[in-house]
Amino acid sequence: MIEIIRNPAPETWKKILQRPCLDNENLDQIVASVLSKVKEGGDKAIKAYEKEFDNVDLDDLSVSIEEINACEELIAEDLKSAIRLAIRNITCFHESQKTETTKIETMPGVLCWQKSVGIEKVGLYIPGGTAPLFSTVLMLAIPAKIAGCKEIILCSPPNTEGKINPAILFAAKETGINKIFKIGGIQAIAAMAYGTESVPKVYKIFGPGNQYVTSAKQQVNLKDVAIDMPAGPSEVLVIADESANPAFVAADLLSQAEHGADSQVILVSTSEKVLLNTINEIEQQLQVLPRKHLASIALTNSKFILLHSKKEIVELSNTYAPEHLIIETEDYSDFADRILNAGSVFLGHYSPESAGDYASGTNHTLPTNAYATAYSGVNLDSFLKKITFQEISKEGIHNIGSSIEIMAEHEGLFAHKNAVTLRLKY
Amino acid sequence: MIEIIRNPAPETWKKILQRPCLDNENLDQIVASVLSKVKEGGDKAIKAYEKEFDNVDLDDLSVSIEEINACEELIAEDLKSAIRLAIRNITCFHESQKTETTKIETMPGVLCWQKSVGIEKVGLYIPGGTAPLFSTVLMLAIPAKIAGCKEIILCSPPNTEGKINPAILFAAKETGINKIFKIGGIQAIAAMAYGTESVPKVYKIFGPGNQYVTSAKQQVNLKDVAIDMPAGPSEVLVIADESANPAFVAADLLSQAEHGADSQVILVSTSEKVLLNTINEIEQQLQVLPRKHLASIALTNSKFILLHSKKEIVELSNTYAPEHLIIETEDYSDFADRILNAGSVFLGHYSPESAGDYASGTNHTLPTNAYATAYSGVNLDSFLKKITFQEISKEGIHNIGSSIEIMAEHEGLFAHKNAVTLRLKY
Repeated sequence: MIEIIRNPAPETWKKILQRPCLDNENLDQIVASVLSKVKEGGDKAIKAYEKEFDNVDLDDLSVSIEEINACEELIAEDLKSAIRLAIRNITCFHESQKTETTKIETMPGVLCWQKSVGIEKVGLYIPGGTAPLFSTVLMLAIPAKIAGCKEIILCSPPNTEGKINPAILFAAKETGINKIFKIGGIQAIAAMAYGTESVPKVYKIFGPGNQYVTSAKQQVNLKDVAIDMPAGPSEVLVIADESANPAFVAADLLSQAEHGADSQVILVSTSEKVLLNTINEIEQQLQVLPRKHLASIALTNSKFILLHSKKEIVELSNTYAPEHLIIETEDYSDFADRILNAGSVFLGHYSPESAGDYASGTNHTLPTNAYATAYSGVNLDSFLKKITFQEISKEGIHNIGSSIEIMAEHEGLFAHKNAVTLRLKY
Repeated sequence: MIEIIRNPAPETWKKILQRPCLDNENLDQIVASVLSKVKEGGDKAIKAYEKEFDNVDLDDLSVSIEEINACEELIAEDLKSAIRLAIRNITCFHESQKTETTKIETMPGVLCWQKSVGIEKVGLYIPGGTAPLFSTVLMLAIPAKIAGCKEIILCSPPNTEGKINPAILFAAKETGINKIFKIGGIQAIAAMAYGTESVPKVYKIFGPGNQYVTSAKQQVNLKDVAIDMPAGPSEVLVIADESANPAFVAADLLSQAEHGADSQVILVSTSEKVLLNTINEIEQQLQVLPRKHLASIALTNSKFILLHSKKEIVELSNTYAPEHLIIETEDYSDFADRILNAGSVFLGHYSPESAGDYASGTNHTLPTNAYATAYSGVNLDSFLKKITFQEISKEGIHNIGSSIEIMAEHEGLFAHKNAVTLRLKY
C-alpha cells in the first residue's frame, strides 16, 4: 500500500513535498459573519452560537471557582502526577529562556537597551472535541506566567452539559489560570479579540484549532489583535539510517498520522532496507491503533523517500521545513548542525516526538505548513515584547547630533533636524 | 488653534486617544488584484505596473553592480560619514542582542535547547516618494546581516528615469546588500512573496509603506510569507514636566507631525503652563518648516492633555501604547520603570526621537496603532527563528516515559503512547 519514491531529482521535491491543500474560500465568509455578530452582540451572540455549534444552553459563560476546584476529584492520581512532572520540566525549560537587560553605550553618552515586558493581556484557546488537549494548556499557560502576563484568560468549548473537560481545568488550575470561559470555535476567538460583557479583550491570542479557528485568528489579526502563528495540519519528517529501530520509526510516524486525516508524515533515508522495514512495521502497528482510520487516511498523504546522500537529505528537509523533525541516525549531531528550517528537532533513538508533545520541557506549539522557514515555535518570547529605551546625555547628543542633522536634512525632514539643532545649542 | 483637554475622566481616554481611522475596504480589492496578476504574470506583470504606477519603462528590474557603484560619487562626503556613524551605532546595539545557546537538562538524560538561526531569505521594502528613506535601509539590512540571513533582497521604486535614489543605494552598499530591484508598492510585495523570473521568493518581508503596501503585506501574510508587523501612521506621545524645555518638546512633536497628514502627536502633562508654553512654541516653529502643510494637518489629530497626577499619566500612556514615547521630565527613570506598552522610549531632555530615527543605535521600525501592546519593534529577533532541539538518552526516556504514556492515553492518542512504550522496553 505504501510506495517508496526512489531518488527523486531535486527539482521535483517541491511537488512531492506539497502539503495537502485545503480550500477555504467559503469558510472565510462563514467565519467573518460569526466574528462580526459576536463583535456586535457580545455575550448574547456567543450564547446563541454555543447553542448552535456546541448544542448547549449556557446561563453563565465563565467557569466558576467551584467547577474549577471540583476537577481535582475527577482526575486520577497518576494523571495528576504526570501533569505535575510535565509542568516541572516545561517550567524549567521556559524559565531558562529569560534574558537579562544589558545597557549598551553605543557612543559616549548614548545609552540604549531593550526591556522585556510580558504582554499584559493574553488569551489561550484550547480545542475540545475528541481529544481534550490539556497538554496544550501547559504549553501556553506556563510561558505566559513566566513572562509575567497580568491577565491570562482561557476559552474552551463545553460539552452538551455545559462542562469543560476536567483535565483541562486541572491543567489550568495547576498553572494558575482561573479566568476560564466555556466558549469554543470562532466565537471564542471573537470574544477574546473584541471583548464582551464577560470576556475581557486581549492583546494576543494563542492556541491551536481547526480550520475555522485558524481562519478566525487570521481575520482578527488583520486589525485587532496579535496571534501566535498561522496553524495548519500537523506534520513530521523522520530521517533514519540503519542504526534506527524500524519499530521506533514506525511508531513515530504513526503518532503523527493519528492526529488527523490531514496530517502528513515523511520518512527519508539513504537505505531502502530502512524504508521497507519501517513500512512493514507501520502496517503491523496500525492494526491495533484505536485511531486506525484517521491514521490510514493520513498515510495516503505520506511520502517514503530514498535519497542518494546525507547532503540531499539535509537539503530536502530544509526545503520541506517540517514542524517536527526526528533524526534517528548514528550521527544525528552532524545532521542537527545543518538544520536551518524546522520547528522542533528530536535527536537520536530515544527522543520520540511524544516526549516534546508532553513532558520533556520543550513547547509543542510549532509552525506548520513550511512556516518554520520564518517562525519560531511558541516560546517565552511569544509572551513578551521588547521595548527599546534610550537615554542620551548632553555629551551624547553632541557626539551623534551632526550626523542626525545631515541625515534628516537629506531625507527632507527638517523638524527632525531641528529637534537636534535646538539641543546642540544648550 | 490648539486646545487643551483638561483632566478628562479615565473612561473617556479611549475615545480621546482614538487613532485617525482609515477606510480601506476598496483598497483591499485593488491590492488583491495586483497581487494575483503578479503571481501569474511575474516580471512582465511587474513591468506593466511599473509603467502604470511609477511611470517608467524598465528593461531590467535589477539594479546593476555599475549602478550600485556609481552611487558613491553622487553622495556628499558629510552624508557618507553620517551614514557610517549610524551604521556603527546600529551595528553595535543590534550585535548586543545576540544570545547564547544554553543546553538545559530538565531531568537527568533529557537535554533541551533552542538554536537561533537566521531566516534564510528575507526581503526589505524601502518606499520612494518625497523622502528617500535610506535610514530604513540601515535599520533593516544591519540586523539581517547580523542574524546571518543568507539571501537579503531589497525592493524600492525607481524614479521616472528608472533610477533608485543614490542614498538608498549607498546605504545598501555599505551594509552589504547587492540584490536590489527597481520595484515599488504592491508589485514589490507580490514579487518578494511569490518570486518571479528575476526576484527570488523570500520567507519574510520587512519595511514600511503606504496603505497599499501595508494591505499587500497583510494579504500575502495570510498564506505565503511572514511579515515584520502591521504598519500604520506614525505617532508620538510626549510626557513633560516643568523641567522640560518647551522648545525641545515642540520640536519633538513637530518632528512627528511632519511625517504625514495622518500622524498623531500627543502631549501629556500635569502642568498647564507646560502645555501652553509648548503650544506657543509649536506655533512659532511651524512657520519655518518646509513640511508645514503636512504638519498642520497632523496637528488637527493631536491632543494636548492635562492630567491630575503622574499615576494618571502612566496609565494614559500605557492605554495609548505609543510607537514613540518621549519622557522629558526630571524623574524620567521612575516613569520608565512603569511603562508597559510602547515601541521605543526616549528618556530625558537630550533624547529626541530623531536620535532613534537615525543614529543612536536603536531601531526605528516600530509598532504603531496600539500594536505596542503585543509587538516589539524590529530587532535582531525579527530576523531569526529559534529552533528547539531535544536529545533524550535511554535514562532520560525512563525518567519521563510513564508520564508521557499516561498523558497521551488520556488525550486518546495511543500511537503517541506506543512510541514511548516501545522505547521503554529497550
